Amino acid sequence: MDIGALVFDVFGTLVDWRSGVARDARGLLGPAVDSEALADAWRQKYVPSMERVRRGELPWTALDELHRTSLDELLDEFGVPDVDEPTRAALVLAWHRLDPWPDVPAALARLRRRHVLATLSNGNVSLLVDLARHGGIGWDAVLSAELFGHYKPDPEVYDGAVRLLGMAPGRVLMVAAHVEDLAAARKRGLRTAYVHRPHERGPAASPPPATDPEADLSVSSLTELADALSPEDAG
Amino acid sequence: MDIGALVFDVFGTLVDWRSGVARDARGLLGPAVDSEALADAWRQKYVPSMERVRRGELPWTALDELHRTSLDELLDEFGVPDVDEPTRAALVLAWHRLDPWPDVPAALARLRRRHVLATLSNGNVSLLVDLARHGGIGWDAVLSAELFGHYKPDPEVYDGAVRLLGMAPGRVLMVAAHVEDLAAARKRGLRTAYVHRPHERGPAASPPPATDPEADLSVSSLTELADALSPEDAG
Repeated sequence: MDIGALVFDVFGTLVDWRSGVARDARGLLGPAVDSEALADAWRQKYVPSMERVRRGELPWTALDELHRTSLDELLDEFGVPDVDEPTRAALVLAWHRLDPWPDVPAALARLRRRHVLATLSNGNVSLLVDLARHGGIGWDAVLSAELFGHYKPDPEVYDGAVRLLGMAPGRVLMVAAHVEDLAAARKRGLRTAYVHRPHERGPAASPPPATDPEADLSVSSLTELADALSPEDAG
Repeated sequence: MDIGALVFDVFGTLVDWRSGVARDARGLLGPAVDSEALADAWRQKYVPSMERVRRGELPWTALDELHRTSLDELLDEFGVPDVDEPTRAALVLAWHRLDPWPDVPAALARLRRRHVLATLSNGNVSLLVDLARHGGIGWDAVLSAELFGHYKPDPEVYDGAVRLLGMAPGRVLMVAAHVEDLAAARKRGLRTAYVHRPHERGPAASPPPATDPEADLSVSSLTELADALSPEDAG
């Protein structure tokens, strides 16, 4: 593969949303709410909320706002409808403070020596900027669904990234822990790498597949991806 | 001033386009062409080429393509119409390899400790990515006219940057060596900092003003800007 740029899914692939959201929910709401259950329920509303935009039922709405709408529903469902406005705003920002998986910062720094690295996430730009600063990650470009007015897996997102990077789609490698994201990228001509993240959805969830047979590469960490793409930079 | 993010003009403000373009033109075209005159003439076509897009005479056209069209005209005007296709393509990429002014990399690294830093340039995203990698500059986000389908000084560019950064316009500081860029940013509510770059247009051009009385700050280098915004990080 002649790869010029790597574009990364972020939630689940690079950062541990479940632990991070649960941690902040625990700190902000106290023991009245099962914080892990709240994190799981919040994430369950993620795809349906974007589907409303993708189907045209909602105009373009950034992820922060979708998160806020979902949170307002959830606080009712979890029996805590009286949570005040500043706490709701702080909870939405929990998604800006998620920790990267332990392999991520060092492996990205290695990969960046020889490749252009960018996000390609449904998170809005300011969220991705905050995550990178929080996690000590340096990007060459922050590419987001927000730039294209479409959420993944709409083809406009992958096509838009390729256009902005100024490369042939076959020189762009999409990296994600979700097979449907990779399948959509492949349809637009990108190369694909699957990362196995068995802990993304917590201990009770059924684990994701260990590999994606359709992807160009399947790895169990970004360290393994860096070893595969930049073996001479090992260590 | 309570500044959350700084957004930077790039050509002339951060990088020395005249020396860089002339250097590559000399290397690629040899002594048959006055390389400094070519750099000056190329830059003189910059604003008129974007004006064609801004007036709607051309659909959205990325800066690399505008540069190519201008170059094709110039090679005729300079009496070298037989320059081959690979050389023309390489010349356009001279704009991706410009060196930063000497004060830039260290001062940006200082400023980035406490502020979100982004480009806000008429250069296309891939050009800005290449410039940052070439110059050893780290950005939190690469914001470009290309993302908005409008060239500066159209208001959509400044409004778009503020929206993507998720901040009130008064918390965003536009930094530029060109008073018209700052005037347009101020009209959209941004704060402004003027950087005096006396050598941008070479020794024969009339120098720009030493200060911009309309700006919140006027400085003679980014080091001075970092001293003003982050005095505690000096050194």
